[in-house]
Amino acid sequence: MIQPWKKIGSQSSTQFPIFSIRTDRKVSPRTGQEHDFFVIDCVNWVNVVATTPDNHLVMIEQYRHGTNTVELEIPGGMIDPRDASPTAAGERELREETGYEGEQPRIIGQVSPNPAIMSNTCFTLHVQNCRLKHNVEWDHGEDLMTRLIPVADIPRLVATGQIRHSLVIVALYYFQLNAA
Amino acid sequence: MIQPWKKIGSQSSTQFPIFSIRTDRKVSPRTGQEHDFFVIDCVNWVNVVATTPDNHLVMIEQYRHGTNTVELEIPGGMIDPRDASPTAAGERELREETGYEGEQPRIIGQVSPNPAIMSNTCFTLHVQNCRLKHNVEWDHGEDLMTRLIPVADIPRLVATGQIRHSLVIVALYYFQLNAA
Repeated sequence: MIQPWKKIGSQSSTQFPIFSIRTDRKVSPRTGQEHDFFVIDCVNWVNVVATTPDNHLVMIEQYRHGTNTVELEIPGGMIDPRDASPTAAGERELREETGYEGEQPRIIGQVSPNPAIMSNTCFTLHVQNCRLKHNVEWDHGEDLMTRLIPVADIPRLVATGQIRHSLVIVALYYFQLNAA
Repeated sequence: MIQPWKKIGSQSSTQFPIFSIRTDRKVSPRTGQEHDFFVIDCVNWVNVVATTPDNHLVMIEQYRHGTNTVELEIPGGMIDPRDASPTAAGERELREETGYEGEQPRIIGQVSPNPAIMSNTCFTLHVQNCRLKHNVEWDHGEDLMTRLIPVADIPRLVATGQIRHSLVIVALYYFQLNAA
């Protein structure tokens, strides 16, 4: 059995606006030696598989600052303290980013974005029968374009590398497994 | 069309052992206002879908320091300067972590782990006909257990949350799309 490492110390290193870095000192259960591990702490995230009555997926194109590229993604973002739940956060992000609202919201998966170096969780919310009902409400860093993509095209868009955000691909896999 | 943001400055903030943080100052094409964006720079990563002649997947269980949990994953890691290519890096990680070696290595996908805040790429390598041929070579922080999992069980293990690492799930989706 793989054993957990015992934490013998922890130190907050550096704060950035949407994440912070922590150093944990731990003891290896295999060698007994001590090592430092750097962990990126973020709030939890949610992304949203929003489907329309005519079997389209509500996607967004946006410019991404980590990669300096325009990416085809699904709506989503950080779960705020003001959100009552991951589901409420997902519905809010869907509304703010695209103006769409739907029915029967349901969490269909949750992953660790990177358990090696990040502590947080990303939830995937599925919302059905989505319709355009609101004006968008972008924050200062956002500049989005909504695109309606036929659900049947999704596997091809993933396989051919037109969708590249790992967490979006995970959400689409959950959606496919759920529909199967 | 979504426009890229113009970068007008960049500053290296903080160096950590396996990543560093950079601040980019950019101008919004929509509002003309300037904003700072924090980017996590890492080397590129590779993970490996290693299949055996009898249709098992070579997986590993390991303790992960970001989440403090034992995770069921596939072999993989950082692409080093000494690696000739992502393919060579994947074959090396497979050998070091599990002792397995296979044939017909092929890159079946590449993603951005998080284009919002990270600049790097994660490649997925598929290696066929893998067999146990070497002793493992773990680095100081590693403590792994190899597990052979029937390929047919993979969708269920993802759907039920027994595999939780987002990049592993992406790799398994590529494998499934590739086999389809």
